[in-house]
Amino acid sequence: MDYYGALETGGTKMVCAIGDDQGHIVQQMTIPTTTPAETMPAMIAFFREYRIRTLGIGSFGPVDLNPASPTYGFITDTPKLAWQNFPLVPEFQNTLSVPVGLDTDVNAAALGEAAWGCTRDVSNSIYITVGTGIGVGILVEGKPYHGMIHPEGGHILLHRHPDDPMEDSCCPFHRHCLEGLASGPALEKRWGRKGEELSQIPRVWELEAYYLGQAVATYMMLLSPERIVMGGGVMRQPGLLAMVREASLRQVNGYLRSPRLADPDSYLVGASLQGRQGILGALRLAQEAFKTSP
Amino acid sequence: MDYYGALETGGTKMVCAIGDDQGHIVQQMTIPTTTPAETMPAMIAFFREYRIRTLGIGSFGPVDLNPASPTYGFITDTPKLAWQNFPLVPEFQNTLSVPVGLDTDVNAAALGEAAWGCTRDVSNSIYITVGTGIGVGILVEGKPYHGMIHPEGGHILLHRHPDDPMEDSCCPFHRHCLEGLASGPALEKRWGRKGEELSQIPRVWELEAYYLGQAVATYMMLLSPERIVMGGGVMRQPGLLAMVREASLRQVNGYLRSPRLADPDSYLVGASLQGRQGILGALRLAQEAFKTSP
Repeated sequence: MDYYGALETGGTKMVCAIGDDQGHIVQQMTIPTTTPAETMPAMIAFFREYRIRTLGIGSFGPVDLNPASPTYGFITDTPKLAWQNFPLVPEFQNTLSVPVGLDTDVNAAALGEAAWGCTRDVSNSIYITVGTGIGVGILVEGKPYHGMIHPEGGHILLHRHPDDPMEDSCCPFHRHCLEGLASGPALEKRWGRKGEELSQIPRVWELEAYYLGQAVATYMMLLSPERIVMGGGVMRQPGLLAMVREASLRQVNGYLRSPRLADPDSYLVGASLQGRQGILGALRLAQEAFKTSP
Repeated sequence: MDYYGALETGGTKMVCAIGDDQGHIVQQMTIPTTTPAETMPAMIAFFREYRIRTLGIGSFGPVDLNPASPTYGFITDTPKLAWQNFPLVPEFQNTLSVPVGLDTDVNAAALGEAAWGCTRDVSNSIYITVGTGIGVGILVEGKPYHGMIHPEGGHILLHRHPDDPMEDSCCPFHRHCLEGLASGPALEKRWGRKGEELSQIPRVWELEAYYLGQAVATYMMLLSPERIVMGGGVMRQPGLLAMVREASLRQVNGYLRSPRLADPDSYLVGASLQGRQGILGALRLAQEAFKTSP
């Protein structure tokens, strides 16, 4: 059997997995993200137990995805100081001696859904995660989109709801950006309690759906995706996905017409892989790295 | 010499041209857009004078760009009633008997700049036109991006400036969208006079740059283009481009870091082809149609 390594790096934990050609995970390990000196050897030891063909990584960012850059595969300006400017890809390449595929965590999640989940039948889809941060992965003709750096779709600017009780936002860069107004920390800053404790208060989620719906409308206008997938911790709030769907269509207001929009429930959908979309996307990155390696 | 036909369809005029492989226009005709019964025969007669290999069209929208659709190449929901549901591509294919390439007017302009203008050296760029309407053309790895329908980047939603004297917007669909707040008709609605007559009033252009800069920031965050080009009638206002550049970077607020952003003057640029970016893009569409025709 041929195996691939898959890694989903996160600010709090690292998920390492071994998978096969069919998208089955045969072994998995989760360890806390501490410092490279501590975390890297543990991950390398895990992957060394298997003869993996390649490794795929879906990483928190920002990461340098430009293959022509001298810092390709480095984590760059992260607030996690121990990982700033850490050569993630070169380290794995040097120690494991296998080709390494890399993308952002949200592009990996988008890819996981396209490979084995709810966007298998379309070529142009986006994956939105709403949690500690907000990120957007974009697939164009099945391939993760990068552009100059990589999309930072959580930082698009929004129209402020006139009744929003929060004056500023939780984003240190932008007073009116999506992440600053609708991420988990934004909920906590606005209402003084964590999202889980606000579950029963309707106006919390009406405002949340207003901002997320506005962002989804802007993604629809600018990217015209064939399907939109939403995941992340905040989206676990019961009923929120349906509220966002309604709010986004209210904002689009009939301007876009397509047979796909005739069934909104199959246009804006929840993540379908039980939280494994990221690690399965990393597995797909490993498979792609195998296909394209010399 | 091998010639190609190029057509830029607009709400008020049609620009027809004959061009060669090198992007030289050898003949051009402009006629008013009236009804298909009147305008189509005149255009067909023009193209018939040359033995064109193929025809390329950059069209006002919305247009059906899905080759698998039964209405591929039709103009669809346009407010120009005479052209609603008009089979633009099929009519030319049937009468001229040549392959026809089609895209939106803004994707064509983006393509013209990439083929012969200011984005020749990058693969992922966008072209923003600010005039009667606002549109965004998107190139991904050199190819026009469509997605489900095609981008409608003029209708992204913006944060309203607190001192904007206009209560609503000029967009019948969206109270807070870019086109509704910053197109030529929005300027006229807000200030009671046309843009040309407002040229000397600083606060008009400060507000205009605020909205355009906010939109550019959102495009930068979501699309991460390697270069952004701005054209269209409103952008002829002296100094506006520089103001938009400054406003967009103020909104991004240092969040994005790339060597390209170190020189903002070469990142956000004006259209470089003296108003011919659309027709030259249509010429490139014709060349592409020749390459891909059986």
